Amino acid sequence: MKKLGNQTIRLDAPVTILDTACIVGPKEAEGPMAKYFDKCLEDEFWGEKTWEKAESKILKETVSTLFSKSGLSSKDIDYCIAGDLLNQCISSSFGLRETNIPFIGVFGACSTFAESMCLGSLFVASGAANNILCATSSHFCSAEKQFRFPLELGNQRPPSSQWTVTGSGASILSSNGQGPYITHITPGKIVDLGITDANNMGAAMAPAFVDTLITHFNDTGRTPDYYDAIISGDLGYIGKDIATDLALSKGFDIKDKYYDCGVLMFDKNTQDTHSGGSGCACFGTIFSGYFYNELKKHNLNKILCIATGALMNATSSQQGESIPGIAHAIAVENA
Amino acid sequence: MKKLGNQTIRLDAPVTILDTACIVGPKEAEGPMAKYFDKCLEDEFWGEKTWEKAESKILKETVSTLFSKSGLSSKDIDYCIAGDLLNQCISSSFGLRETNIPFIGVFGACSTFAESMCLGSLFVASGAANNILCATSSHFCSAEKQFRFPLELGNQRPPSSQWTVTGSGASILSSNGQGPYITHITPGKIVDLGITDANNMGAAMAPAFVDTLITHFNDTGRTPDYYDAIISGDLGYIGKDIATDLALSKGFDIKDKYYDCGVLMFDKNTQDTHSGGSGCACFGTIFSGYFYNELKKHNLNKILCIATGALMNATSSQQGESIPGIAHAIAVENA
Repeated sequence: MKKLGNQTIRLDAPVTILDTACIVGPKEAEGPMAKYFDKCLEDEFWGEKTWEKAESKILKETVSTLFSKSGLSSKDIDYCIAGDLLNQCISSSFGLRETNIPFIGVFGACSTFAESMCLGSLFVASGAANNILCATSSHFCSAEKQFRFPLELGNQRPPSSQWTVTGSGASILSSNGQGPYITHITPGKIVDLGITDANNMGAAMAPAFVDTLITHFNDTGRTPDYYDAIISGDLGYIGKDIATDLALSKGFDIKDKYYDCGVLMFDKNTQDTHSGGSGCACFGTIFSGYFYNELKKHNLNKILCIATGALMNATSSQQGESIPGIAHAIAVENA
Repeated sequence: MKKLGNQTIRLDAPVTILDTACIVGPKEAEGPMAKYFDKCLEDEFWGEKTWEKAESKILKETVSTLFSKSGLSSKDIDYCIAGDLLNQCISSSFGLRETNIPFIGVFGACSTFAESMCLGSLFVASGAANNILCATSSHFCSAEKQFRFPLELGNQRPPSSQWTVTGSGASILSSNGQGPYITHITPGKIVDLGITDANNMGAAMAPAFVDTLITHFNDTGRTPDYYDAIISGDLGYIGKDIATDLALSKGFDIKDKYYDCGVLMFDKNTQDTHSGGSGCACFGTIFSGYFYNELKKHNLNKILCIATGALMNATSSQQGESIPGIAHAIAVENA
């Protein structure tokens, strides 16, 4: 393990992403990425009585799918690292409580899946663990209820708002395997430029994305040319534009290889999600369902994933606080 | 780094707890542990307009006190690992946003401080970082408001209820220094025996404490005799009794050296807290203010700290869910 520059850790022992799994909700099933997901649900409840219980079930079944796909079972996993958007991360704790795997709860808002893979990489590369399970989830209905307004109110959504992805993504990081490998992690700083509009998360989080992006390049000596793709979690249309411009203004032109999972998830013209997708599961499912498999197929060989999160809650917004953003990066590469 | 048994990691490079700091609220200032804390506040607001902002300020000032005591500054810290009880951990994110230190958010309910020191140890022992800041907080008023009833209601508290500690604890883990050293970590499993009474957290969390305790002994080959003290975070009077009996029934007699920070924090006869203290800051402040200094003075030389958390929220209780518990352990020893 070697610290590079200010924030980046180079993993000197191989950390393979052994397998991934993802399940999404019905709206995501109508979007352009549907074919890449392991399972698409027909409704938001999946037989449960509440949205919170449904979200836990989605996470639980995603982990179960991951075990089926990988041939591993919970006994093979040393530790699981998981978190989500629900207060006190209950989707993760209830979704994973029957697995009997030691549990490390994390919170990075929508950056949680990248955060869990940063920490998981450290366990594996240091020799402390052979197999780490990383998981996350989000749910449109539980998130709207908790962070904004009751869905029953039928509140109008402003053009800058994003649509929380219903779904779960999970991965197993392993000391065994032939890649793709997590080679570097760059945990991010809290960046708060004073945005207070809780309906414009893209603008609030874009500066954190650019901060981690540039720090990663400075720490590693790499440039945008090195990567086949640079991926943000859920900046959406507005945040992606801000991030592209802000990075360019600081000398980094990423425009030709830059993808945002919030932009990829829904069809702009037909799905009425305004600025695109968001939520822990936005990066969680598109990384697990799409980018991971592009790496496996060697259509992509070097990608930099930077998932962003907004570290606020409903109370902080009501008390007039601005929205601190954060972004955690993982570099994933074939040998 | 060496995995021992099922869940324990032996840290083969030295991880010193370089220094600690803690600040508490006015009720804690009237309790028997008051003289061990760095600062005792005179009121619950500390000049802020809301309890949430006060909690963030307490965490921020605790970190500032820690920098003063240790002679380090934020520039010397590689990463900070922090979390708290507020929804989306906003006490930590708002309290630390001006430090400019890369931030890793964690959630383990009242086990958060032990969880952050587990993860921090891994960063230091693996060579990924030289100095890690761990921090947590809780606040009686913000916790009651969020988890139970508005304080203005003057609701009667049942005898099994515990009193959330107002305060913050913080530590710096370092690759340099002469100890006390974190030598082993045992991240815990989620244990849910079906307790549904949100006013009896001690009973809900005690089985998780015992699970991690016994796992730690089995993994390391140690027995209770090895340690000078075994410390739980906030089981309170009821939970401490359950834990003592449950451990004994499984062959581990810890009674003579077992301390609970929730029992230590308040005076049982005069302070009317019923089953004792609780909250992230319960273990956070008593470890940082008392046990750490007992180790520094060599009054204690080998301690096992197991902080517990209840991984639920107000919605899960309202939806009839039971309360999953978790407990994370760190062994702290002088050379």
